[in-house]
Amino acid sequence: MSSSYGEILRVTIFGQSHSPAIGMTLEGLPAGVRIDQERLSRFLKRRAPGNAAYSTPRKEADEPEFLSGLVDNVTCGAPVTAIIRNTNTRSSDYEELKVKPRPGHADLTAQYKFRGYQDYAGGGHFSGRLTAPLCIAGGICLQILEQKGIRIFARIRSIADIQDEGVFERSLEDKAFPTVSDQQGERMQQRIAEALKEQDSVGGIVECMVTGLPAGLGDPMFSGMENRIAGIVFGIPAVKGIEFGDGFAAAQKRGSEHNDAYDVGAGKIRALTNHAGGILGGITTSEPLIFRAAFKPTPSIGKPQQTVDLTEMKPATLKIRGRHDPCIVPRAVPCIEAAAAIAVYDACLAYSRT
Amino acid sequence: MSSSYGEILRVTIFGQSHSPAIGMTLEGLPAGVRIDQERLSRFLKRRAPGNAAYSTPRKEADEPEFLSGLVDNVTCGAPVTAIIRNTNTRSSDYEELKVKPRPGHADLTAQYKFRGYQDYAGGGHFSGRLTAPLCIAGGICLQILEQKGIRIFARIRSIADIQDEGVFERSLEDKAFPTVSDQQGERMQQRIAEALKEQDSVGGIVECMVTGLPAGLGDPMFSGMENRIAGIVFGIPAVKGIEFGDGFAAAQKRGSEHNDAYDVGAGKIRALTNHAGGILGGITTSEPLIFRAAFKPTPSIGKPQQTVDLTEMKPATLKIRGRHDPCIVPRAVPCIEAAAAIAVYDACLAYSRT
Amino acid sequence: MSSSYGEILRVTIFGQSHSPAIGMTLEGLPAGVRIDQERLSRFLKRRAPGNAAYSTPRKEADEPEFLSGLVDNVTCGAPVTAIIRNTNTRSSDYEELKVKPRPGHADLTAQYKFRGYQDYAGGGHFSGRLTAPLCIAGGICLQILEQKGIRIFARIRSIADIQDEGVFERSLEDKAFPTVSDQQGERMQQRIAEALKEQDSVGGIVECMVTGLPAGLGDPMFSGMENRIAGIVFGIPAVKGIEFGDGFAAAQKRGSEHNDAYDVGAGKIRALTNHAGGILGGITTSEPLIFRAAFKPTPSIGKPQQTVDLTEMKPATLKIRGRHDPCIVPRAVPCIEAAAAIAVYDACLAYSRT
Amino acid sequence: MSSSYGEILRVTIFGQSHSPAIGMTLEGLPAGVRIDQERLSRFLKRRAPGNAAYSTPRKEADEPEFLSGLVDNVTCGAPVTAIIRNTNTRSSDYEELKVKPRPGHADLTAQYKFRGYQDYAGGGHFSGRLTAPLCIAGGICLQILEQKGIRIFARIRSIADIQDEGVFERSLEDKAFPTVSDQQGERMQQRIAEALKEQDSVGGIVECMVTGLPAGLGDPMFSGMENRIAGIVFGIPAVKGIEFGDGFAAAQKRGSEHNDAYDVGAGKIRALTNHAGGILGGITTSEPLIFRAAFKPTPSIGKPQQTVDLTEMKPATLKIRGRHDPCIVPRAVPCIEAAAAIAVYDACLAYSRT
Repeated sequence: MSSSYGEILRVTIFGQSHSPAIGMTLEGLPAGVRIDQERLSRFLKRRAPGNAAYSTPRKEADEPEFLSGLVDNVTCGAPVTAIIRNTNTRSSDYEELKVKPRPGHADLTAQYKFRGYQDYAGGGHFSGRLTAPLCIAGGICLQILEQKGIRIFARIRSIADIQDEGVFERSLEDKAFPTVSDQQGERMQQRIAEALKEQDSVGGIVECMVTGLPAGLGDPMFSGMENRIAGIVFGIPAVKGIEFGDGFAAAQKRGSEHNDAYDVGAGKIRALTNHAGGILGGITTSEPLIFRAAFKPTPSIGKPQQTVDLTEMKPATLKIRGRHDPCIVPRAVPCIEAAAAIAVYDACLAYSRT
Repeated sequence: MSSSYGEILRVTIFGQSHSPAIGMTLEGLPAGVRIDQERLSRFLKRRAPGNAAYSTPRKEADEPEFLSGLVDNVTCGAPVTAIIRNTNTRSSDYEELKVKPRPGHADLTAQYKFRGYQDYAGGGHFSGRLTAPLCIAGGICLQILEQKGIRIFARIRSIADIQDEGVFERSLEDKAFPTVSDQQGERMQQRIAEALKEQDSVGGIVECMVTGLPAGLGDPMFSGMENRIAGIVFGIPAVKGIEFGDGFAAAQKRGSEHNDAYDVGAGKIRALTNHAGGILGGITTSEPLIFRAAFKPTPSIGKPQQTVDLTEMKPATLKIRGRHDPCIVPRAVPCIEAAAAIAVYDACLAYSRT
Repeated sequence: MSSSYGEILRVTIFGQSHSPAIGMTLEGLPAGVRIDQERLSRFLKRRAPGNAAYSTPRKEADEPEFLSGLVDNVTCGAPVTAIIRNTNTRSSDYEELKVKPRPGHADLTAQYKFRGYQDYAGGGHFSGRLTAPLCIAGGICLQILEQKGIRIFARIRSIADIQDEGVFERSLEDKAFPTVSDQQGERMQQRIAEALKEQDSVGGIVECMVTGLPAGLGDPMFSGMENRIAGIVFGIPAVKGIEFGDGFAAAQKRGSEHNDAYDVGAGKIRALTNHAGGILGGITTSEPLIFRAAFKPTPSIGKPQQTVDLTEMKPATLKIRGRHDPCIVPRAVPCIEAAAAIAVYDACLAYSRT
Repeated sequence: MSSSYGEILRVTIFGQSHSPAIGMTLEGLPAGVRIDQERLSRFLKRRAPGNAAYSTPRKEADEPEFLSGLVDNVTCGAPVTAIIRNTNTRSSDYEELKVKPRPGHADLTAQYKFRGYQDYAGGGHFSGRLTAPLCIAGGICLQILEQKGIRIFARIRSIADIQDEGVFERSLEDKAFPTVSDQQGERMQQRIAEALKEQDSVGGIVECMVTGLPAGLGDPMFSGMENRIAGIVFGIPAVKGIEFGDGFAAAQKRGSEHNDAYDVGAGKIRALTNHAGGILGGITTSEPLIFRAAFKPTPSIGKPQQTVDLTEMKPATLKIRGRHDPCIVPRAVPCIEAAAAIAVYDACLAYSRT
């Protein structure tokens, strides 16, 4: 099922950008897990729009209403369903898009697949808004993982040509713009401001780290940690690539440079380096798991673009109205954390039975 | 199940490097499909070892024996199972590895996961040898896709610091070293020879293209073409990253550069560029689908490496005996084609029911 | 996932008897399907309580609110989610049951499985109330199947010792008490009234027929029509057995009696009898598919029963207060139709790709 | 996938009656499980043909060859694949059946589904022969379950009109004809002999009991123990019905008769009766799990039958040559045990993660 993910834990995402509600169902959570709603709210706020200059001003409370699966905020073993009502919708903004598919969006491919029946308003089920229920599910998993000593945190690794600098080894959740180097963060925000000014947009890379993992998590072949994480991360709109450890840079290396030598310390085996990004053969080594996801620039830009008028089947110019995030990377940071948390916790549940 | 992949079509890979046999079962193939065995053999030969200087001299016929699912080489609707006997095995080569896990291999993570019960000989179920049954399954899918006008072909995009050059638009299956530019191919082989001489290894990138796809293939969210392809490609040993279209390069671009404008030609909508790599919202645009997979350098190198002696729990030096591919990228080319074929054909079967 | 069912079409049921809402998500419906809401309401009313003397007086509007997946009542390809708010709940009725598990209910097994975290109010996720969302999903499938000429209709085959009589060959949806013979229906209702008077309950059998099926639906082995239908029907509370065609009676027969001979009529092959119940080898013959499900007597009875006080771990007497259906079989009739519709439509969607 | 079963443990059955081999792959077995091959052989012999007057004289060694997943007969965590070569095949026996589908068999429905491409020889993938690999998988699970104190044993409950008598509470694996009452067993064999003499066949019922189960096994709704067991049992050819505990008889009872009252003994809660058959709400109570499966009479009978000649599309008489089991019930006893073992062990593996 394309809107579901997971092996032991299964999350199903439903809703469209402008449907009465969006939401998620999480099956397979153990009974007896307390959910800290206040903390979940804080997590969801990191993804919410309207927080900064680079973010769409559409204001959404994004407060989840839990319909099932909880008794006094503790899981009871039944599926957990939570919804968010869509209130601040402006469908008339989207009338033009019905006949003029936006370049770089799923408008045209949705038209191909659903033969005109797709919900074109706001991108329908393809909208970035659907990452809100993903973050509900992921926010719950993050709370559970933390109790197991597993921490997941992401940063903006780059935006446009600007790279973050410094050692990345702890959560940046308290930063409004999550980079290690505030100076580089400033420069990134400048790139976003420049793009916005020119009615354009920029892309970037999010880097995610998972610490505290037990060794032996994950499975051979098609259920390796990479397959599991890639399988959910590519469900986040605008992701065009993923790499683990040294990733694409590994392709340029010698084996003698890339192999992580083993050593013994305090009675435990440790790797002296972590080019592998914490995974060998799909299975965790106990070193930090590291991956990066590449986000393309937001396709919704104010600049006029060439598209096709579907009724007349001839080229047409599209000028997207309304305001859109000139860069979705900052808001994607908690989405990546959420996706990683779901994948990792699912692997943990699968692991307990080996 | 970690050794199975697919939604409508399901491939299960079994076997270890030194078990009596390796093999695959393919469920969900329509009845009435004729398999060209001679052609399948040719495809498997492209993956087989012992073909070149950069490849391990272990000689394996790799001729599949079909046990079920065929009547006179035509599918009968029952699961298709084929096996390859493991004959040329030399288990004594691996005795040392039982206590000295090879850096960069799954030896240690397998030990963690399977608590000493793993089949350590030759990497067991983690061995690159398991790509042979993957190629049986993929080779069958390639034949079926071709009849639908869908072609899948991959090339060596880079090895170490050497990039392929020229326009990549057709299969290079007839080339012993599949690059567009023979000159660049020569330089790549030189890099491999250099590494081999120093008892070292090199990595590289394989690029794959799928042409002739219908528009509308794939699904939203977690069953997008990227999720589907990544889900199988990360099942190939040594893959550390995957990117679609412009991939990581897209993260540096502006939206106005990256969006593919639409035009009309011959009554059909076409994109003027293909930065998207043929996918938007997880669904095919009908432009060629393009992806690249990064392979790390072969972890088995002759150079002495530091590892740990598991019985004594102290550092030890490992010198891997025997010969190993100094670069697995050339042999990975048909594996990537096979993986892509399985993912694409599965998406085709899923598509027919929308 | 235990609250999900289906291969191509996937229904997920969520909610507890007394949670804020109950509901369902249906993934895999084709885009472009119009849902007749008025008709769906009529179908749901057949299951709703409070319609008759033998039914609990808890009144629930059971009007579904669709949150996603529809645009103007037409499916758009995204998951369809509908919920029913739980309004008329009386949780204090259930306080005693927290420590005194009801015999014949899942109270104690839920306690075992969820270690005290289960939602004990009203049976939680195990409640018969969860068949309401099943009927939403099934009601949608029934509408789609009807357009394909496939009709599904069930009847009360027996209650206690009273059997229905007469030829069952059309829908009895317009009957308040769906038996072919009104006279036998009267006698069944008398049995229910007798049980009610004695604060007891009775069981019965529902028979279901599917007509208009194409030949060739279903799959070998574990996805036969029997596996598919049993896999969902046992999800309806109180079902203790299922049989197809002659079912258990076949075990007493000779092959020469039980085999359905073939004949040719109007250029088509027909079976002269239908002992097989329309299925051979898990695959439809095109004869009507017939199955029966046995329902145990409602476990909630007013009569005092022996149970155990879990806090004191000693025997205790339980007298269940409130009114409960003395026989759930009449209300189970649309539930069986719904379950069969989901299973059959899922098989149809799977079939289209053979 | 229709030839696969299981959630955490997954068995895939491949092969046709007359293909080079039949076999099974079992994924998800923990590493470190020792398989007692000699004992597995004994188990398989109970299913093997040629043991008695009522069984087809086709002699098959049915000795499995393990191709993968084991190191010195201990599981290594990789998929376990075993095959049985088909040697004693006589395809010419089946030529006539290509055009004259056997009544009561899947010949015609396979033709519908696979459009003439099915392997018609010996029933192809629909053959009862495919229960041999099912018994390999089940035989392995039985060994593992036994180490957990879980025993599974089945008996012939009835054949034709003859019922077994006496208390069924232990394995009858050492009996050639597994009934509690030898006298009733004699009478059953007489019924089989009578049928054989008249070139006819008879059906019967197999009853299965699972003891030593922990409380809390199984899941709500669609993964209840009933759904799990029915989902595999209907994969055994000729099964037409399944019931748990009192089953269909429960439909005739009052709640006060059918509910199992609770009592306390030795600090544990026990049910005073076991009408539920050890399952409430899909979850085990810790009382013995009891179910019965109804088998139709073997459809292959020597008596002339009316069928249709598919080439001429007119009625034809079929006289099935060769010898066939006049009653498959005795050989079905270990098959039911195997199926139950797979379902129960899979539920155990799922349970460990709640």
